[in-house]
Amino acid sequence: MEKKTVVVALGGNAILQRGQKGTFEEQLANVYHTCEQLADMVLSGKWRLVVTHGNGPQVGNILLQHDAAKHVVPPMPMDACGAESQGLIGYMIQQALHNILDRRGRGDIPVATVVTQVLVDKADPAFQNPTKPVGPFYREDEAKLLRDEKDWHVVEDAGRGWRRVVPSPDPKAIVEREAIRILVQNRAIVVASGGGGIPVVQEDGELKGVEAVIDKDLAGERLAEDVGAHVFLILTDVEKVKLNYGKPGERALDRMTAAEAKRYLSEGHFAKGSMEPKVKAAVRFVEAGGERAAIASLDQALAALEGQAGTQVVP
Amino acid sequence: MEKKTVVVALGGNAILQRGQKGTFEEQLANVYHTCEQLADMVLSGKWRLVVTHGNGPQVGNILLQHDAAKHVVPPMPMDACGAESQGLIGYMIQQALHNILDRRGRGDIPVATVVTQVLVDKADPAFQNPTKPVGPFYREDEAKLLRDEKDWHVVEDAGRGWRRVVPSPDPKAIVEREAIRILVQNRAIVVASGGGGIPVVQEDGELKGVEAVIDKDLAGERLAEDVGAHVFLILTDVEKVKLNYGKPGERALDRMTAAEAKRYLSEGHFAKGSMEPKVKAAVRFVEAGGERAAIASLDQALAALEGQAGTQVVP
Repeated sequence: MEKKTVVVALGGNAILQRGQKGTFEEQLANVYHTCEQLADMVLSGKWRLVVTHGNGPQVGNILLQHDAAKHVVPPMPMDACGAESQGLIGYMIQQALHNILDRRGRGDIPVATVVTQVLVDKADPAFQNPTKPVGPFYREDEAKLLRDEKDWHVVEDAGRGWRRVVPSPDPKAIVEREAIRILVQNRAIVVASGGGGIPVVQEDGELKGVEAVIDKDLAGERLAEDVGAHVFLILTDVEKVKLNYGKPGERALDRMTAAEAKRYLSEGHFAKGSMEPKVKAAVRFVEAGGERAAIASLDQALAALEGQAGTQVVP
Repeated sequence: MEKKTVVVALGGNAILQRGQKGTFEEQLANVYHTCEQLADMVLSGKWRLVVTHGNGPQVGNILLQHDAAKHVVPPMPMDACGAESQGLIGYMIQQALHNILDRRGRGDIPVATVVTQVLVDKADPAFQNPTKPVGPFYREDEAKLLRDEKDWHVVEDAGRGWRRVVPSPDPKAIVEREAIRILVQNRAIVVASGGGGIPVVQEDGELKGVEAVIDKDLAGERLAEDVGAHVFLILTDVEKVKLNYGKPGERALDRMTAAEAKRYLSEGHFAKGSMEPKVKAAVRFVEAGGERAAIASLDQALAALEGQAGTQVVP
């Protein structure tokens, strides 16, 4: 039987749990737990696997590290920090997944992380309206100095201090799609487009990094289209998508069509920057010809992939 | 005509020049210059290309950044820092090389960085005798405190202060060799094993990162064997290998056999940690069945690849 391809988008909890400090050991332990679920998919024998993941806490830490050392080491721009985080997280995932597969008799399956750029549009309205907070908290005077010096956008963040905000443009294409496709077609497991990918624009005919953050589920959807995936699976820390979340009439959904999902989106059922982009990404995928998308908890990954758990999104 | 495969090992000067501060812009400009040479090789139509590179200054900066932020962000171990540097440098190379190829009409050729682990032997004598200085300089009292607290090896470094030293074990295998091979056989240009690779040992049947640095030319040689390369090209900042370097009777070599090279090595002609591992790597490659190795300056890369410049090392 010809295998189908799934792109799995891992949520932040797959790598770092709330309340943890972010040591390497903590993250690696979480990654092992996550990779047990991924190995189950691979060992079912039915799926080719592409993995993508968030990088919020990791790139946040990298930005803090660059800032702390700025008097001795020139800080890198955000695109370069994103690239560093792809190396770090990709390394953890490929080591853990290889070890687990090896223990289960399939150490022969190649696992590789591809550093991934994601093309965005220079004319994307997000560039006129930066909304995504990144990096350290500053005092108001520091923040305003940075705004004037570096042309940053800064905002006060819920009483916790001031932060830089950057644009969150829509992903248009995975630059390394052909390399990723080649690997997947030759039975490799690929980790790609980490943290939503390194955002690049086309300028004077060249790719050029930009200071922005692409939503990792929307970038994962683009990746799923680009590798011709059959299923796009978004793993997070809740079991199902809910209507009226936290309100009277709350209801978990086993299944919704793209049309239903779009209605729920327009009715404002889903939290911005959280469940909203996940549902949006799922809708896009099935509307672009994907068989099925699913949104589920990490611990029900295989069941959700087989249509038996989570919220299934169908055309 | 069937293309041949070359593994090119880039020296530190390909990414950062002596005396530069290490800003992203400086590094990217150097990488563009380097990638012009690499593009010439690809566009000659005769070669499949795998690129590897050093990471000394970059991982040094990352260690400084982690150290500077240690009170707010848990510092990562060296293997994880190496992974970050692979992401950073791989990103710069794959963006620059893609842009140059695109400008020259071949933007269709995939370019991808594969995060790469390199297996070393736990019993390697290097682990008993750490020699490779890494990371920040410390005062003597700080260094001795770190030695006692973290079980580091520290040494005084040529009057400039105290530094940590780590083992430099011999590379045994490229863990991601199969993924790299798949890409190369399918006409992709691959950046791999950056900084000598992320060093891992086999422990209780699992791969595990270790705090060590693998020589990038020796790791590049292992990569060249593992992808079945015909030529292994080591680019550096001198035009040729020299006997009696900086002494009376100094002589540049156009060509040497493996047997001659081994004699020169045993006579101590080459500087440790600099030309010595390059010549050793070249000898290993031709002794393992490679057609030819060459050691040359970055600016003569294509001529050296075609046997017309640099020092050619033959079986």
